[in-house]
Amino acid sequence: MVVPAKAFRAAVAGASGYAGGEVLRLLLAHPRIEIGALTGGSNAGTRLGELQPHLLPLADRVLQPTGPETLAGHDVVFLGLPHGQSAAVAEQLGEEVLIVDCGADFRLKDPVDWETFYGSPHAGTWPYGLPELPGARDALKGSRRIAVPGCYPTAVTLALIPAYAAGLAEPEVVVVAASGTSGAGKAAKTHLLGSEVMGSMSPYGVGGVHRHTPEMTQNLSQAAGERVAVSFTPTLAPMSRGILATCSVKARPGVTAEQVRAAYSSAYAAEPFVHLLPEGRWPSTSAVLGSNHTLVQVALDRSVGRITVVSAIDNLTKGTAGGAVQSMNIALGLPEELGLPQTGVAP
Amino acid sequence: MVVPAKAFRAAVAGASGYAGGEVLRLLLAHPRIEIGALTGGSNAGTRLGELQPHLLPLADRVLQPTGPETLAGHDVVFLGLPHGQSAAVAEQLGEEVLIVDCGADFRLKDPVDWETFYGSPHAGTWPYGLPELPGARDALKGSRRIAVPGCYPTAVTLALIPAYAAGLAEPEVVVVAASGTSGAGKAAKTHLLGSEVMGSMSPYGVGGVHRHTPEMTQNLSQAAGERVAVSFTPTLAPMSRGILATCSVKARPGVTAEQVRAAYSSAYAAEPFVHLLPEGRWPSTSAVLGSNHTLVQVALDRSVGRITVVSAIDNLTKGTAGGAVQSMNIALGLPEELGLPQTGVAP
Amino acid sequence: MVVPAKAFRAAVAGASGYAGGEVLRLLLAHPRIEIGALTGGSNAGTRLGELQPHLLPLADRVLQPTGPETLAGHDVVFLGLPHGQSAAVAEQLGEEVLIVDCGADFRLKDPVDWETFYGSPHAGTWPYGLPELPGARDALKGSRRIAVPGCYPTAVTLALIPAYAAGLAEPEVVVVAASGTSGAGKAAKTHLLGSEVMGSMSPYGVGGVHRHTPEMTQNLSQAAGERVAVSFTPTLAPMSRGILATCSVKARPGVTAEQVRAAYSSAYAAEPFVHLLPEGRWPSTSAVLGSNHTLVQVALDRSVGRITVVSAIDNLTKGTAGGAVQSMNIALGLPEELGLPQTGVAP
Amino acid sequence: MVVPAKAFRAAVAGASGYAGGEVLRLLLAHPRIEIGALTGGSNAGTRLGELQPHLLPLADRVLQPTGPETLAGHDVVFLGLPHGQSAAVAEQLGEEVLIVDCGADFRLKDPVDWETFYGSPHAGTWPYGLPELPGARDALKGSRRIAVPGCYPTAVTLALIPAYAAGLAEPEVVVVAASGTSGAGKAAKTHLLGSEVMGSMSPYGVGGVHRHTPEMTQNLSQAAGERVAVSFTPTLAPMSRGILATCSVKARPGVTAEQVRAAYSSAYAAEPFVHLLPEGRWPSTSAVLGSNHTLVQVALDRSVGRITVVSAIDNLTKGTAGGAVQSMNIALGLPEELGLPQTGVAP
Repeated sequence: MVVPAKAFRAAVAGASGYAGGEVLRLLLAHPRIEIGALTGGSNAGTRLGELQPHLLPLADRVLQPTGPETLAGHDVVFLGLPHGQSAAVAEQLGEEVLIVDCGADFRLKDPVDWETFYGSPHAGTWPYGLPELPGARDALKGSRRIAVPGCYPTAVTLALIPAYAAGLAEPEVVVVAASGTSGAGKAAKTHLLGSEVMGSMSPYGVGGVHRHTPEMTQNLSQAAGERVAVSFTPTLAPMSRGILATCSVKARPGVTAEQVRAAYSSAYAAEPFVHLLPEGRWPSTSAVLGSNHTLVQVALDRSVGRITVVSAIDNLTKGTAGGAVQSMNIALGLPEELGLPQTGVAP
Repeated sequence: MVVPAKAFRAAVAGASGYAGGEVLRLLLAHPRIEIGALTGGSNAGTRLGELQPHLLPLADRVLQPTGPETLAGHDVVFLGLPHGQSAAVAEQLGEEVLIVDCGADFRLKDPVDWETFYGSPHAGTWPYGLPELPGARDALKGSRRIAVPGCYPTAVTLALIPAYAAGLAEPEVVVVAASGTSGAGKAAKTHLLGSEVMGSMSPYGVGGVHRHTPEMTQNLSQAAGERVAVSFTPTLAPMSRGILATCSVKARPGVTAEQVRAAYSSAYAAEPFVHLLPEGRWPSTSAVLGSNHTLVQVALDRSVGRITVVSAIDNLTKGTAGGAVQSMNIALGLPEELGLPQTGVAP
Repeated sequence: MVVPAKAFRAAVAGASGYAGGEVLRLLLAHPRIEIGALTGGSNAGTRLGELQPHLLPLADRVLQPTGPETLAGHDVVFLGLPHGQSAAVAEQLGEEVLIVDCGADFRLKDPVDWETFYGSPHAGTWPYGLPELPGARDALKGSRRIAVPGCYPTAVTLALIPAYAAGLAEPEVVVVAASGTSGAGKAAKTHLLGSEVMGSMSPYGVGGVHRHTPEMTQNLSQAAGERVAVSFTPTLAPMSRGILATCSVKARPGVTAEQVRAAYSSAYAAEPFVHLLPEGRWPSTSAVLGSNHTLVQVALDRSVGRITVVSAIDNLTKGTAGGAVQSMNIALGLPEELGLPQTGVAP
Repeated sequence: MVVPAKAFRAAVAGASGYAGGEVLRLLLAHPRIEIGALTGGSNAGTRLGELQPHLLPLADRVLQPTGPETLAGHDVVFLGLPHGQSAAVAEQLGEEVLIVDCGADFRLKDPVDWETFYGSPHAGTWPYGLPELPGARDALKGSRRIAVPGCYPTAVTLALIPAYAAGLAEPEVVVVAASGTSGAGKAAKTHLLGSEVMGSMSPYGVGGVHRHTPEMTQNLSQAAGERVAVSFTPTLAPMSRGILATCSVKARPGVTAEQVRAAYSSAYAAEPFVHLLPEGRWPSTSAVLGSNHTLVQVALDRSVGRITVVSAIDNLTKGTAGGAVQSMNIALGLPEELGLPQTGVAP
């Protein structure tokens, strides 16, 4: 493939992990990005082929150590680092480099939230890489810093923006979301072994303690114009990829099914990566495997006066690397959809 | 194995399905039950070994047609039939036979609920086979009719009885439950193919339309002493067995975490098949695969004032056949736990 | 995306099935193909979004009936039809249309083989869509007929061509291959239900009766220059996609590990879609999920004098639709790799 | 449950692992065994409920350190230890204690084989816990030492004993076996993460290097009365439990399908835990999940003159803990089937 003359060069820090691997999968298909340095921590010195055997075109690349000496000289740097490390790397790279942080460091606006949930000093807040959130797309244009949202907040925020933006829902939501195991990362842990997860569903981080809770609260409150209380229960599902988020909110008095549908229909009519399904069809995670799309469906249960919204994303694509590339496109002035997968790999 | 002199003979109608197969698996291990006739619909005439190859001790049994001529002469008859067919069979068998209906026909008390959700005339109401529900155990003693609960209502009711019985929760609950595919039965349907369900989570019956909703409402209202509104979303998970039910209720004002724990702890201290996990441990469906146990954990999220309860069962064991055998034991005056599996098959 | 002026228009017959769906997934990413008519049998009249929800860009397309009136007027027609139907359709379309048959009708050269395994008259033989097979690439150039290979023969032939072409192996091979369930198609059958296949491995078509056996024999005999006897056992694995083929052949006397490696290394050095892994690395099906690549590794077991070769493909991509598009590219004079996925979707 | 007066007390060393957990699951259902000490290495001091949540009746037991002070005073001691550690423990316990070693230390007769494959001095040879192997049952009677076979050798040996004992097959066999991930143990390793194994098949230990190879060779040679060469390729399948072993041997000249079937039929007619399926039915691992049974089927492929045998076991039950308990029963003079599961948990 001929790389166009004005290509951007991108480095990926943390190329051995699941987020880094997915960023690379997408960049390989991106017509305006040339892949530069790939770095890793303990895996520096290893061929990428041994760590990410699905990325054949990069199999013979060798991981370099993560640091300014390897990351300098790129137009874009993707960071897939443990939280707390991004600020130092960003400082070393300079303001003209577009830094896309797939970690949590710069997502939250409220330092107290950060310190409560992460237990370390707050590093700051960067433009938030969820273009569909009101105001976010403008903030991303021309920005040189992007905080990529968490995977659960992406699925949940996209499920609920229309209901809150249209004033249809009370400011308290119950969310139960199922995630594939790749959301837990690639570090070897007993409870994530295939033997443990296959054939099993289990919750974790129950009772408001999951770190994605304040991020959802922040997004939904922004959409609603008032503070939204979020009761969030994540569950681990026996699949590698995908998030299915089921959200239940009390409808404001008098809200009709037609109003609900109209709000969702108009909110997402022009969004390239959020798709409201025809009535009667519900999302499945398999339909978006490897795709940057979000599938959404909504129903009003009149008997209990609640709105149920379900969204499905691929946690590694739209939920991480795809959202990152989509936001990068906006920041670089490229077409928002450029190079991003429009179809899932199914069955 | 020597069958004790006073054994009961049991027939199973619908022996080729998943519910019937699980009843047989449990009866094979039951020291006081002798397995009599096995019947099927379109599968009559077929060796059980071709339909249920895991039931080796019964492999050479041949299915007979379902009808009074094959089901007569047994002490117990388990029915695993399509809904609407149990009443006629029951009438033909006589009042002295213990009939255990794994179908829905006799679960609901309110004929309007039945007709709304099933679209046919209401057949009646039988003693409800969830011994843990207040009053149910007494009604089962000596009864010759048992309506086995639905799998979702079993998981959800056991999750919430203590909160409602102790008056800790507002009468509105949001339930999101994930079920293995065996809950959808053994009939060949495209959307249940392995290719479609592996690697995928999806919801169905959203918006209050799932038939188990009125059954949950009935049970929880009974426990609470007031009508409880249920918002229920079932999801299909990529596993064969298991239900994980996540339930969220608003705590009544002033309720403390200690009160919540005490309510659950005392409610289930003496229950043989409901186990409140130690604090910090959460249920997984794999831990109860093939077991008649229910695992429960509860947390109070003070920041939003809600109680989250999660329960896990095997939908075919405690959720169907195990609950059926447990109730049968009570009805026959046998020890409630007799012959029922106490351990899961894990990993 | 701007479609180049000289685009080819392609129709897909059987667009509701797994093969047809994968052809469409690939064509959507192909820069020189414009997607024309989509046809189906019993699904004619249905929106594609209901049948293939992962193909969002085509969601609103409605399936037309399969026939000359809908398939005419295209440059390329992909057939994903039940076997026995392709010849009639091909005749109606004319000689100038490129017909790519994903079915079995035109794969076998020997009419007796066809009649033995398929029980119907032999329709003929078309150029064989496995470009890596000696002689095949030349036959495909400019051809207007392509017989796409079966998925197992693709995996097994690519595993063994180098050993036979270099004269390293005795002409008798034992093959045990595991396939994802999508290889069995989308028709609803009880034994393919998720409940039946998850957590289970099972063989089928054992003892030389699988219809892909004569196709493997044909290919390997062509590579070896003598008749190769194939003992083939396919097994069904609990995954949607992928074939892992394990092949064992007796090494000719005196053959060394270095000779074996050299044969494989040189045979595949220039192949765009067959990748010999570095020594010590073995293929996995997940590494090629959604990709058109074939991963191969080989070992000589000196203690028993046998060569073991393992290959991994995605049965729907390289094993069906990807092989079809690769062959189409050759037939149309396009670059062989055009539009074909080079990376897998993992994890 | 009332424990009979003459119960045996059993300790389990390595109770936190998969083998130890399965031994406990079976012993909990065994009417003549009382469970004594449970020991672990790094997990000593932990509640069993945290490590094996499916073993509810033992949830509050706390693991003790593994050593003579905790293991002494039992009639039976099961060892689930890393290889190389069993000899020292056995010496400390005395000759009158029945020691059932689930590890590899005492399986092989040939010290050279041991040293070649395990790289340490040979500890010796104990009576081999595969009662179905000619001569093994007699050696187990009254023995106070048992070497439990490896899981693959169990599946493969049971598949091939009849063919070799009846002189029907040439002394060279090709085996390709698929195993669930629990066979790889509970230690956290990246390549065994759920994200890596779900949806994926891959081989390992190819080319004669897997440690179970000499054990198969030993068993099959014993059955055949001559040295049998084994080409063995294990593969990892996306399921927790189960082994499906596909074995291919050249039939001796003139061997007929009837002879093959007769040999298998008579060899296993009286075996309580090996079941030859009716003609046309093939084994699946799901049918034996949690069961101690072995399912076997055999076919003669006349076109290539080879016999294909497929067997299915649960690697943790018949392949480890069930075989251990079955052998223990024989050694203690109990009925061989006592307490062992006869049915699988399916679907």
